[in-house]
Amino acid sequence: MGTAATRLAPLPQAPVVCDYREIAARKQADRENSLAKYSEWRVKDPGSSVTDVSDLLLSKLSAVERQIVSKDATDLVADIAARKYTAVQVLTAFCKAAVASQDLTNSLTEIFFEEGFERARQLDQILEQTGKVVGPLHGLPVSIKDHIFVKGKDGATGYASWAYKTVADHDAAVVKILREAGAIIYVKTANPQTLLALECNNNIYGRTVNPYNRSLTSGGSSGGEGALIASHGSPLGVGTDIGGSIRIPCAWNGLYGFKPSVARLPHTGLGGSHDGMDNIVGCVGPMATSARDLNLFCKVMLQYEAWFVEHQNLYIEWRSEVAEQGKGLPKKLVVGILADDGVVAPHPPIRRALDNARKALVAAGHEVIDYIPMDHQASWDLIVKLYFLDGGAEYFETLAESGEPAIPSFEWIVSHAQGRAPYTIAEMFKLNVEREKFRARAHAHWNASAKQTTSGRPVDVILTPIAPTLAAPHDSVRWWGYSSYWNLVDYPAAVFPLGRLRAADWVETSADALPEPRNDTEAFIRSQWNPETYDNAPISLQVVGRRHMEEKTLACLNIVEQAIKEYESK
Amino acid sequence: MGTAATRLAPLPQAPVVCDYREIAARKQADRENSLAKYSEWRVKDPGSSVTDVSDLLLSKLSAVERQIVSKDATDLVADIAARKYTAVQVLTAFCKAAVASQDLTNSLTEIFFEEGFERARQLDQILEQTGKVVGPLHGLPVSIKDHIFVKGKDGATGYASWAYKTVADHDAAVVKILREAGAIIYVKTANPQTLLALECNNNIYGRTVNPYNRSLTSGGSSGGEGALIASHGSPLGVGTDIGGSIRIPCAWNGLYGFKPSVARLPHTGLGGSHDGMDNIVGCVGPMATSARDLNLFCKVMLQYEAWFVEHQNLYIEWRSEVAEQGKGLPKKLVVGILADDGVVAPHPPIRRALDNARKALVAAGHEVIDYIPMDHQASWDLIVKLYFLDGGAEYFETLAESGEPAIPSFEWIVSHAQGRAPYTIAEMFKLNVEREKFRARAHAHWNASAKQTTSGRPVDVILTPIAPTLAAPHDSVRWWGYSSYWNLVDYPAAVFPLGRLRAADWVETSADALPEPRNDTEAFIRSQWNPETYDNAPISLQVVGRRHMEEKTLACLNIVEQAIKEYESK
Repeated sequence: MGTAATRLAPLPQAPVVCDYREIAARKQADRENSLAKYSEWRVKDPGSSVTDVSDLLLSKLSAVERQIVSKDATDLVADIAARKYTAVQVLTAFCKAAVASQDLTNSLTEIFFEEGFERARQLDQILEQTGKVVGPLHGLPVSIKDHIFVKGKDGATGYASWAYKTVADHDAAVVKILREAGAIIYVKTANPQTLLALECNNNIYGRTVNPYNRSLTSGGSSGGEGALIASHGSPLGVGTDIGGSIRIPCAWNGLYGFKPSVARLPHTGLGGSHDGMDNIVGCVGPMATSARDLNLFCKVMLQYEAWFVEHQNLYIEWRSEVAEQGKGLPKKLVVGILADDGVVAPHPPIRRALDNARKALVAAGHEVIDYIPMDHQASWDLIVKLYFLDGGAEYFETLAESGEPAIPSFEWIVSHAQGRAPYTIAEMFKLNVEREKFRARAHAHWNASAKQTTSGRPVDVILTPIAPTLAAPHDSVRWWGYSSYWNLVDYPAAVFPLGRLRAADWVETSADALPEPRNDTEAFIRSQWNPETYDNAPISLQVVGRRHMEEKTLACLNIVEQAIKEYESK
Repeated sequence: MGTAATRLAPLPQAPVVCDYREIAARKQADRENSLAKYSEWRVKDPGSSVTDVSDLLLSKLSAVERQIVSKDATDLVADIAARKYTAVQVLTAFCKAAVASQDLTNSLTEIFFEEGFERARQLDQILEQTGKVVGPLHGLPVSIKDHIFVKGKDGATGYASWAYKTVADHDAAVVKILREAGAIIYVKTANPQTLLALECNNNIYGRTVNPYNRSLTSGGSSGGEGALIASHGSPLGVGTDIGGSIRIPCAWNGLYGFKPSVARLPHTGLGGSHDGMDNIVGCVGPMATSARDLNLFCKVMLQYEAWFVEHQNLYIEWRSEVAEQGKGLPKKLVVGILADDGVVAPHPPIRRALDNARKALVAAGHEVIDYIPMDHQASWDLIVKLYFLDGGAEYFETLAESGEPAIPSFEWIVSHAQGRAPYTIAEMFKLNVEREKFRARAHAHWNASAKQTTSGRPVDVILTPIAPTLAAPHDSVRWWGYSSYWNLVDYPAAVFPLGRLRAADWVETSADALPEPRNDTEAFIRSQWNPETYDNAPISLQVVGRRHMEEKTLACLNIVEQAIKEYESK
């Protein structure tokens, strides 16, 4: 690989080549080049027979470095501020693991450790000289999903067609604030071609795999972030989500992830197809190793008055007293458990996790009701129409530029629209009306949950799976209904980990029996169930709150996690 | 007119007639019928030679009733709660003036005083029996613009084609909250055909005229509200604004009006063309006789947790401490004066009002800078594209249903789009990108005003005209740039009155000289200037704040008004 790195010089300008294979070779060579200086950190791939690489990932790290990468962002910024570690020391530890992550999971795109170390040295010096941190994230390494603008870096967004043509001339708003807060930007991470996939695969770099089981996907579209953070190659990452793209890779890599309501966090400065499509809008959010880091990220963004940094950010200050102290929350929550969305039943380990959570919540004195699912199939039918208003035309035009084929997961999703003409403006208005009616009904449905509760209040949050399966075998994701539903209605949703499935320990009981398939999708997903397939895969659940109530959602996540911990410690 | 009322019975069902003239005759007859019971309150029209009818409007009111209708909503709810007046007494006073307003300005559409009195009696009883008000608007009559849903009432929205077909099966969210808060809904008010006009004229009822000078328009599209409230026929009205439709009729009728950012106040339940068009979105807002009533309205809406009432409302509580006490505001404001938008210079009385305000602000110790206008012509060119994405097709289809002709002001605005094909989806995406780039530039432009100020802070608010003319002669509005600009960027904006032009007292000086016209629009508007034309017309200005900073905008309005009052009293 070192040979490839020197054979092809990096191209500062857009190359004249247009075949995607040549572009891919050049991009991969560039990436190799950027690692040339760190050859001693590289890890030899043990071969595909080794599926769990989680231990290998830390093989180049010292004991102190392992300690560092095991900490969450909240601890790290405190430790750096307290001079327990220097920023350089912290960055070194994460870069070592990031190199291993690249070698074993293929998670990285643009690598610029040098710039990171330069900034780390500056920050260490400032702290030494002034005794003060530059901001609340002083010295914290933060990784960035490929399609988010980082000034001077390419943002090919998984399109071979875009490589070298998408060097950002400015930082995305989120990156700008991160830098001001003292974070160190040092690496960009893989996303799938088109971004419209819950897996991570593209024609530039190929597939990003799951560090816990490489025969499974790292999820998507923020799959590079998912694999990297799970590899301890980053303590905190920035993802984006329009159908599950933060939550799925977090869930499938055992991380915490948060999709806020649209525009609650700054989200200008993103590359991607369909620029100007605002019929369904994505958002930026944190991917992390603790629930409190989700809060930290949001708090910092709004502390820097994101509404003055970009024009789209909602002017709603971060209600820390709610998110951190649960101010205004009832003593006992009402939690709605949405166990089955009426389309695809979740696999047994997910159902067990939910059952366990239910018992834990009841044991802690909270009220638990069954939240009645409302039209998840209809929500999917509607959101795919919104994804492909132009019938998929722009995507295919972009692919054609370099002659690259569609990845399988995009082929699958775009098949929903293929053969259909682009909507007219009048049809688009009607589709928006349909969307607003759906949202209105979902809103009324939540209000109506009050009728089911003894308290007479509607549920505070919903607890639900994030997907019907654990991390999926490659190219096999077929149901987005547990994640994309909350994008359609624009509700904040967080995922959190609950251990991993050990196939060897799994004993199936009659309680695990899956229902008769209600449709082809469910039949397919049901047929996938086999504990061996998902061995070592993380198990996660999702907490969903009401629109713009990010703080309450995170506060409830804390309460739910606490209840589960207490229940399990008994 | 009484004859017409009995000749045609009201039609409870959609009639089979389709010619607009017959529909208009029936609707007018219905309206007459609904006033049959109040014949003693009717006022004889003195003929078109009497242009100022403001005194006549109160001719049927007793001294106490005149006192009542001279009060603002804040005082009225306090007086009713303190049992100074009964709700029935208050409603009677406003209904009397409303009837006069109908007779002299043609401001009403659906009239249902009976229901109002029924509710008023209930409310009086509740207060008498319990000693408690049902809510903060207990007993306050509130008028509603025609296209806002009021359960059981028609909402023809100025289309003869829609009459009798648009009886609402539910209340708009704003009406729902008003009722809960104790307000009395008793009348709906005229808006122009299509809503896309800053005048008020339609083929059902004809023109709504300005009570201060009936040869001038009452403004639009909330022109019925403007005329009614100025007639003392309502203390508080609900309007909507997508290009100036609250602010223009408020300004031209000497009222206070507030256009908040989109979705800051509840805005579901509106009739209108282009349902589902969200490329440029309108909003609901108050029209009132005092600045504090604007605050009262917003406060009540959000006190009733509008985000739980409808799904679109932003979850941002009303920051009363900012709006009412100016919490967090700097001791001395920085006010940017945008005196000329670079396209059409305002007429002399408006310039004088601005000059006077500038002196007053400086005298009060505030910092005043000239706010540099940014691309008002481009903002107009862009927003009319967004208004007519389908080339105007849907509007014309609706008109065709009853064979009604377009009103002149709609003919003028739609001429911007005529002959153009509807946009494709891909073109629409590009237009949205253009819109977002414009918004981003306007946002950066505001931030950059910091470079002009001695404090180093950007301006707190902008003080600017709301239009280049006072209330326009009928069918002559040609420039929306001072109002629609703030819809495009989605900034809150309030208008407030500064007296009236008295043609007899007007002495033109060289300082009033208008510049050489820079374009045809300016040439036309310049040619309109003649103090006689605008005799008795109210003079107003506009205060503009930053997105979602409704409270700060209103707080600054208070400060600006205070400074002007102090200056003038010296």
